Amino acid sequence: MAALGGNALLRNDQKGLYHEQIQNATDTCENLLDIIMQGHNLVITHGNGPQVGNVLLQNEAGESKYGISALPMHVCVAETQGHIGYLIEQAFKNVLIKHGIDKNIISIITQVIVDKNDPAFKKPSKPVGPYYNKEVADQLTEKFGWTFSEDPRGRGYRRVVPSPKPIEILNWNIIKELAERGNIVIATGGGGIPVIKNKDGTLLGVDAVIDKDLAAAALAVTIKANEFFILTDISNAYLNFNKPNQVKLGKVTVNEIKKYLEEGHFADGSMGPKIKAGLYFLENTGNNVLITEANSLKDPDAGTRIIK
Amino acid sequence: MAALGGNALLRNDQKGLYHEQIQNATDTCENLLDIIMQGHNLVITHGNGPQVGNVLLQNEAGESKYGISALPMHVCVAETQGHIGYLIEQAFKNVLIKHGIDKNIISIITQVIVDKNDPAFKKPSKPVGPYYNKEVADQLTEKFGWTFSEDPRGRGYRRVVPSPKPIEILNWNIIKELAERGNIVIATGGGGIPVIKNKDGTLLGVDAVIDKDLAAAALAVTIKANEFFILTDISNAYLNFNKPNQVKLGKVTVNEIKKYLEEGHFADGSMGPKIKAGLYFLENTGNNVLITEANSLKDPDAGTRIIK
Repeated sequence: MAALGGNALLRNDQKGLYHEQIQNATDTCENLLDIIMQGHNLVITHGNGPQVGNVLLQNEAGESKYGISALPMHVCVAETQGHIGYLIEQAFKNVLIKHGIDKNIISIITQVIVDKNDPAFKKPSKPVGPYYNKEVADQLTEKFGWTFSEDPRGRGYRRVVPSPKPIEILNWNIIKELAERGNIVIATGGGGIPVIKNKDGTLLGVDAVIDKDLAAAALAVTIKANEFFILTDISNAYLNFNKPNQVKLGKVTVNEIKKYLEEGHFADGSMGPKIKAGLYFLENTGNNVLITEANSLKDPDAGTRIIK
Repeated sequence: MAALGGNALLRNDQKGLYHEQIQNATDTCENLLDIIMQGHNLVITHGNGPQVGNVLLQNEAGESKYGISALPMHVCVAETQGHIGYLIEQAFKNVLIKHGIDKNIISIITQVIVDKNDPAFKKPSKPVGPYYNKEVADQLTEKFGWTFSEDPRGRGYRRVVPSPKPIEILNWNIIKELAERGNIVIATGGGGIPVIKNKDGTLLGVDAVIDKDLAAAALAVTIKANEFFILTDISNAYLNFNKPNQVKLGKVTVNEIKKYLEEGHFADGSMGPKIKAGLYFLENTGNNVLITEANSLKDPDAGTRIIK
């Protein structure tokens, strides 16, 4: 299974144009082709950070300019699953066609159940959407009950939403079946659409963001993936990252990486969640984890490999 | 197979709020439950008119307010597949849970191939997105090569896009397999994401709108559906609709309805495409067609039935 970071479609220095995204997706899929060539089945998950940020801004702008009611955040996540799933599906299909490989690729809209008693709901922490001034932020809090957090760099106030843990990937059995029949499956985009279970068992969408790496790990464990590739914009994890004494990590054991994690080597917003997701997968399956960038997949010595 | 009209999620008198949409979807799915109870497998397609209209406006507003590049229309269609697929999936799953039925329901992002030589590409006719004044419309024509059409009711200029015929539903074999295994499948939303085939066989998204009823019929024929339900906001098709001498149509034969169609009884923007879609299905499968509203499905005498 392969988890694509947000940069698989959109780099930080890009504007989000369609042609940029389809080119990035194509490059990423060319790299993923190796996994197919090696005879593996493949399930792909992906981030949606820049895209859902844009959708939230577009919703806000559409409401103020045209009076179109902004959709709840979980619906915006669903929109990005459609958008990004389509782009990856088309890019990968074209790569397959160019290489003469007859294989289906299919994108699945994915809901992910979270626990309504998850402590994250009491402490929203994940910033989403535009910056507002204090007055507007206070109005929105009154109107919708949103929580805001002041930006440390003075850019204003930004909505923060809970980031609960994924409990169950809906339709994981179908994702598994489709992959086992040789189809490439794209699922759980943006960490999945967060839903809670009501008392009667029915589902309810909630405004939250599930960490995409944790959701990918949850899916990889559930479908019992043989290997878990976490693809990001850097070739390796590092100790003392960006310091003069930084050390590139190659093969590391579970115990080593746990120690490094406790020592604070991996930042919360970037490598931390990937390491945690990798550990969760390895501890629940015994199978290996590779953290690297997509274009290093061809090199058997590249990347940070977590082993038992 | 059941094709849902746009009003299955959003009625003309509603604003597009999430709670309205989920309530409408739930009502529709309660009605569709009968099809399940009768032991049928079920594939659902749906429209996206009001939703994609909103996404286009939000894209325009997001570009002018925040400089977020508006996405091409085919990507906007993909977004609405995510949005609406999610809502129908969740609503139907909750209906199943309430009725104690253990059944999966899954939403598939669907590309639909159209012919790049379809005459529709030379004569864009389907209005989409906001109204502009002449000056802005001319600027957009120069910038993007868009075609505009003046609104007969004086509301301004509106972009028109081609409405080519669906040629092939991508992944129809997976849709068929999933349905035959008893899963409810949601696919081909909004008529599908329109793509053309390049000379080398690769796919390319195009700005167009595929008629949702025709796309549904193409899917129903391809998967060899036993019956094709076209659900809309009216119980029956009529002759001389809305005139003093209007006549409700119950059971009608292919030859009768062809005659009525030629006589101009069914309007282009409403009943016409449904009749054509129904005819296409019946002539290619020999199986029956029912055109009605969702809450009439329980009544075996309701609706307009096209038979051989």
